[in-house]
Amino acid sequence: MKRGKFFGIGVGPGDTELLTIKADKLLKKIDVICSPRSAESKPSLALSIVQPILDERNDNYEILDPLFPMIEDKLALNTYWDQAADIIKEKLVQGKDVGFITLGDPTVYSTFSYVAKRLKDLDFKIDVIPGITSFTSCAAAAGISLAEKDEIVVIVPKVDDRLAGILEYGDTFIIMKTSRHSEILEEIVSKDKRDKSIISVQNCSMDDENVFKGFSKDKKYLSTTIIKFDNKDE
Amino acid sequence: MKRGKFFGIGVGPGDTELLTIKADKLLKKIDVICSPRSAESKPSLALSIVQPILDERNDNYEILDPLFPMIEDKLALNTYWDQAADIIKEKLVQGKDVGFITLGDPTVYSTFSYVAKRLKDLDFKIDVIPGITSFTSCAAAAGISLAEKDEIVVIVPKVDDRLAGILEYGDTFIIMKTSRHSEILEEIVSKDKRDKSIISVQNCSMDDENVFKGFSKDKKYLSTTIIKFDNKDE
Repeated sequence: MKRGKFFGIGVGPGDTELLTIKADKLLKKIDVICSPRSAESKPSLALSIVQPILDERNDNYEILDPLFPMIEDKLALNTYWDQAADIIKEKLVQGKDVGFITLGDPTVYSTFSYVAKRLKDLDFKIDVIPGITSFTSCAAAAGISLAEKDEIVVIVPKVDDRLAGILEYGDTFIIMKTSRHSEILEEIVSKDKRDKSIISVQNCSMDDENVFKGFSKDKKYLSTTIIKFDNKDE
Repeated sequence: MKRGKFFGIGVGPGDTELLTIKADKLLKKIDVICSPRSAESKPSLALSIVQPILDERNDNYEILDPLFPMIEDKLALNTYWDQAADIIKEKLVQGKDVGFITLGDPTVYSTFSYVAKRLKDLDFKIDVIPGITSFTSCAAAAGISLAEKDEIVVIVPKVDDRLAGILEYGDTFIIMKTSRHSEILEEIVSKDKRDKSIISVQNCSMDDENVFKGFSKDKKYLSTTIIKFDNKDE
């Protein structure tokens, strides 16, 4: 029997209309949708984004919702990813196509890559449909450009000493999930004496989107801070 | 009379289906499409990407195609952007909405920002529809992830001494329009002794897409190189 294909599908930052035409078409016909949850009780955000598209379907499709808890224990995480790869594999060998939906883009800090690696090793065919990343969407919401001309952009998922080292070389810094580490971020950034603008966006492109100047200090999961240093030659 | 609104519309890397649903809907109804050309004789690539969407329209719409030559002379460039802002302004004061289409995303190295600044200063309303960036699309085409866990991603539009300084701090480097400066890029990168993988993509998501290992050496305009350094703790 012909094996199914495994797709990584980027669903963008939150607004269903920010999916691509390609992702929309695929989600209207794919056999199985895989949408990991971070906790048993927590509905998947990625699934809620594509739900309006799925609601238009009149045919049958399956949803897999493996648990991917937000933990640091590498060994335990590997077990979760192994399990997810196993249940997806089961569908693929039945000839079913499986789409793994992921917030933003599947190639940018997504758990998709861990599962994809396992399935690639088993010689399954894999395809990735890019998605709108949180940071371009945040820049759009804030009405700013991320970069112009020769400006260097740095994307930082975790604030630590490396940021202090890299700071002087970049023009725009995108700090992902910034609420986890806004105090140390503020401390590091304040040491750079260049003129700068700091904008944070929470829940970008969603109904409760919030754009404001300065750092993001409450505990919202989906918050991004963009730091732009002024270029002297502007 | 009510003034029109100015939209920056990201059209993604090349495949029409990589436009968002939102951009697709907007392009099917917007009054005026602005699509800069880099030379009189050269058709706009962004326009060719959205042409299949425009072909579905049965109503009238206008196309503006101001000239944005690829030159370095700042004073001359300012004149071109002023002129473009002027012709767009004319439509906006007539109450027409104008969509400025741009390859990739309007907030990432796009001439949209220069024109938008001018219209913002005149108090026109501006909205940005994000687009799929070339680099996530290139990663998808190459079947790699751009970043996982705590990895720092650096986007470099021009290769010079700054890259040499920043190299040790980043994990993934995205070199835009790499064919312009692949020799110096190779020289700088070879000095970093970490294990690395180097992948280049030309004309990503288009019919003649080309993905290969190593640097991009011919003169194709749309070429991107992704350099990933191995993380020891993987």
